[in-house]
Amino acid sequence: MSHRVDELAERLGCSWQGDGAMVLSGCASLQDAGTGDLSFVSNPRYLAKLADSRAGCIVVAPQVAEQHPGRTLLIAENPYLAFRDAMVLLHGWRLQPAPGISAQAYVDATAEVAEFCTIRPFAYVAPRTKIGRRVILYPGVYVGKDVVIGDDSILYPNVVVYDRCVLGSRVTLHAGCSIGHDGFGYATAPGSSVRTERAPTRSDGEVMHHKIPQAGNVVIEDDVEIGANCSIDRATVGSTVIGCGTKFSNNVVIGHGCRVGEHNLFVADVGLAGSVTTGKYVVLGGQVGVNGHITLGDGAQVAASSKVLSDLAPGKQYGGTPAVELSDAKRIVLQQQRLPDLAATIKRLEKRIASLEARLSSTNADA
Amino acid sequence: MSHRVDELAERLGCSWQGDGAMVLSGCASLQDAGTGDLSFVSNPRYLAKLADSRAGCIVVAPQVAEQHPGRTLLIAENPYLAFRDAMVLLHGWRLQPAPGISAQAYVDATAEVAEFCTIRPFAYVAPRTKIGRRVILYPGVYVGKDVVIGDDSILYPNVVVYDRCVLGSRVTLHAGCSIGHDGFGYATAPGSSVRTERAPTRSDGEVMHHKIPQAGNVVIEDDVEIGANCSIDRATVGSTVIGCGTKFSNNVVIGHGCRVGEHNLFVADVGLAGSVTTGKYVVLGGQVGVNGHITLGDGAQVAASSKVLSDLAPGKQYGGTPAVELSDAKRIVLQQQRLPDLAATIKRLEKRIASLEARLSSTNADA
Amino acid sequence: MSHRVDELAERLGCSWQGDGAMVLSGCASLQDAGTGDLSFVSNPRYLAKLADSRAGCIVVAPQVAEQHPGRTLLIAENPYLAFRDAMVLLHGWRLQPAPGISAQAYVDATAEVAEFCTIRPFAYVAPRTKIGRRVILYPGVYVGKDVVIGDDSILYPNVVVYDRCVLGSRVTLHAGCSIGHDGFGYATAPGSSVRTERAPTRSDGEVMHHKIPQAGNVVIEDDVEIGANCSIDRATVGSTVIGCGTKFSNNVVIGHGCRVGEHNLFVADVGLAGSVTTGKYVVLGGQVGVNGHITLGDGAQVAASSKVLSDLAPGKQYGGTPAVELSDAKRIVLQQQRLPDLAATIKRLEKRIASLEARLSSTNADA
Repeated sequence: MSHRVDELAERLGCSWQGDGAMVLSGCASLQDAGTGDLSFVSNPRYLAKLADSRAGCIVVAPQVAEQHPGRTLLIAENPYLAFRDAMVLLHGWRLQPAPGISAQAYVDATAEVAEFCTIRPFAYVAPRTKIGRRVILYPGVYVGKDVVIGDDSILYPNVVVYDRCVLGSRVTLHAGCSIGHDGFGYATAPGSSVRTERAPTRSDGEVMHHKIPQAGNVVIEDDVEIGANCSIDRATVGSTVIGCGTKFSNNVVIGHGCRVGEHNLFVADVGLAGSVTTGKYVVLGGQVGVNGHITLGDGAQVAASSKVLSDLAPGKQYGGTPAVELSDAKRIVLQQQRLPDLAATIKRLEKRIASLEARLSSTNADA
Repeated sequence: MSHRVDELAERLGCSWQGDGAMVLSGCASLQDAGTGDLSFVSNPRYLAKLADSRAGCIVVAPQVAEQHPGRTLLIAENPYLAFRDAMVLLHGWRLQPAPGISAQAYVDATAEVAEFCTIRPFAYVAPRTKIGRRVILYPGVYVGKDVVIGDDSILYPNVVVYDRCVLGSRVTLHAGCSIGHDGFGYATAPGSSVRTERAPTRSDGEVMHHKIPQAGNVVIEDDVEIGANCSIDRATVGSTVIGCGTKFSNNVVIGHGCRVGEHNLFVADVGLAGSVTTGKYVVLGGQVGVNGHITLGDGAQVAASSKVLSDLAPGKQYGGTPAVELSDAKRIVLQQQRLPDLAATIKRLEKRIASLEARLSSTNADA
Repeated sequence: MSHRVDELAERLGCSWQGDGAMVLSGCASLQDAGTGDLSFVSNPRYLAKLADSRAGCIVVAPQVAEQHPGRTLLIAENPYLAFRDAMVLLHGWRLQPAPGISAQAYVDATAEVAEFCTIRPFAYVAPRTKIGRRVILYPGVYVGKDVVIGDDSILYPNVVVYDRCVLGSRVTLHAGCSIGHDGFGYATAPGSSVRTERAPTRSDGEVMHHKIPQAGNVVIEDDVEIGANCSIDRATVGSTVIGCGTKFSNNVVIGHGCRVGEHNLFVADVGLAGSVTTGKYVVLGGQVGVNGHITLGDGAQVAASSKVLSDLAPGKQYGGTPAVELSDAKRIVLQQQRLPDLAATIKRLEKRIASLEARLSSTNADA
């Protein structure tokens, strides 16, 4: 899908300079781009690489364009968004399989499948499910009883959605996600007067973990995308909710009863314990952990690998373990790195004090 | 499944006060509960919310009941257990699919499948497996050669059990778990006189990681429940063991040769390196990591995100990286938070010492 | 597969002492081994256990053999490699299913499947894939469009390989891995002039995360082994690369555009953000995290649970958060453990200084 520079500019709603007739056939990073490629610079840190890049055309901000009058450039207020839009025009989206229900799939007779759906071999659709229009179920997908899936959602291979969960429209779930398995709820006690799911009540008085039925579900709202091998617990009662427009990377774990807000971004390996609430536009870096029953305000951002042990205010950046405001976290880390020096300093001070004490005693003795 | 308050009390073996004829139809948290719902307070921190809750009935401890004479309450020594039992009575367990072997499943002719099993479409049962009574295999489950599964176990969609592993009775494995894949064992050396599984021996002398056959298996004892997307390595020789009654949350990783004791609780993202041994009733918080060849005593508890680098004594609480006793860990964290202040204090002390030294020198000089 | 001690020595290219006619039938750890078992000692820490072991024969280094003249021993320069080779001879490799394409698999008519492949029930092979000779696809494996897989590769149950990814020869992927799902790339902005994959452009001006097409792929080179439930992102453009001979344990997460070098070892739960580059023979301990756009030099080693926030030099060991050279990291941790003492010391010093100041003032006043 090749495009001329001037044509791209028109489609992206931005301006251009240089060779408007240049034909671009793809996108690439500044380092890898060739003469037929479009690249971009958004982060000022990488501006120095612009001069060396062989990219035919580069998307830049207006103030950057002025400094490179000789290059062919696309000029946009938000270069990253313009590059993204160019990616869509030059590379397009994954070509999805054609609609149709495979004879090698299992679709229960009581399932309601709307028009133009794609259900591939070895996908499984349980009783009383409701599948919206143009939904795509890849091979190995499992959709449990009474699940509802909105229009245009895509479930990649081997995704599992347990019974009674609800997915909105345009939800994308990547391979191996599990949505709505039982949350981690047990009452620890010797014996119980009520039988466990499949076990006779023990009578020997041994303390054990009695499973609590996980009677809730998971609700994933519109436009959510979830990375590979994520695990989202169903609520004990009520719903675990993933808000509209939120995106997760891979292997993210969400405990039962969490309510993740709209337009959040969770990088890989984030883990939320149970009953965490996040506002809108919360951003959690990779491997961030959040303790149970905590609330993160709108727009709170937490640096990678931090552990959140208390509520976070809206609109601020946090870091460290336990997470504190990022500027404080940086000061603490800086001093941690200097701890061996600090300890040595203290030893030296101690000697100087001892020496002072000795001198003062002798001075006093002299006196 | 509605129940009257007085009837619930009888079934749960607890007492009640207020309106015994009140009909409850479900359970909910204190905040979400309506007039037909049962809720509970167990943690004293949440007692204040009791007054505001619209719950028709609340399970509380005897001393709490005395303070709320006007409310309809269920009164139990262990309110959390009583609430759990009420969840079973009011909400029940997931309705499992009816017994029967789907014609769209693959069950090898040499597999032994006991009566009342459920094997759904696209489940795969390899040669010489032995499947106990009432076992449920959801779609996409893979059961490898010579695997043994005890009565009443449930394998949710896309669970994988490699060859020769052994599962006890009433074992529950959630979606996407892998049990018994090869452990992480390689001998690093230039070349080898013995051929690799499928590779010709290299002769160029390049140092490489020669795979060690993982000839052991995984044994999961009775009443174990494993969350979604967990990965449990088979042992190199012998068995990786998960003890009776132990429960894992999601994405837990267990290295080869670990021996996890009975009635352990591992929260999500826990990772055990190889050959770790845990006693009974060990509790590991989310994201805890444990180094290889370490032993954790009975009842040891480790706070979320801590990293265990040495053996832990029985019955104590631990935290931090490296994990130390929790009270010490808290003191360390407190001082870490104060490090910038501490560093500033040291600077001030240094100045005061220098000033003292100067004064003492001048005093001495005077003298 | 039993072997005599003298015969094993010949096969392994090492020497022996003691009873060369002893027949060994298996391998075991020093603690678990019986009289018919071979064991090994490589780590000097475990030498003390040698005397108590009931193992019939033990692989040791020459200097160890001299100290135990009475025992039957295999004597090798690299005891761990010799033990590994003995594991291959005594235990062998997993017996793989016989070649053949199951009638219950789905293999697209346009797929090219070379001779001697094994494709089990419920495996799915998409259009235009090229599968090399002797490749094994277990049940539930998904191979996307235009994927290429080299000879002798093994994909265990429920592995997913997205479209256009390339696997080399002798690649082993364990259960539940996802290779080549979309990377985590979004441009955050109010609206966009170009439509999203399946969504109409929003017109209400709400700030949202606009998905960037992930048009690249994943290339996994020869002799790579990947543990269970790992997730490897496809590149936005170009390729995410896993170098020849590299091995991952379970639940490892690799961001888009990473280039992992040859013969790396990543222990479980390692997470690489986007565009990380590693040299040859890099070793990352369990739960290590690496920030985006970072380079790790050849042979760099990072201790478990460390977080890498800046480039690492070749050939050195690192630890801590942020990761610094391991010797420094150990000094920092040591002082962290002593922080409460350090704080108490500072308080005492402060008092001694105050006392000195008071004494000096009174001395001066006296004077």
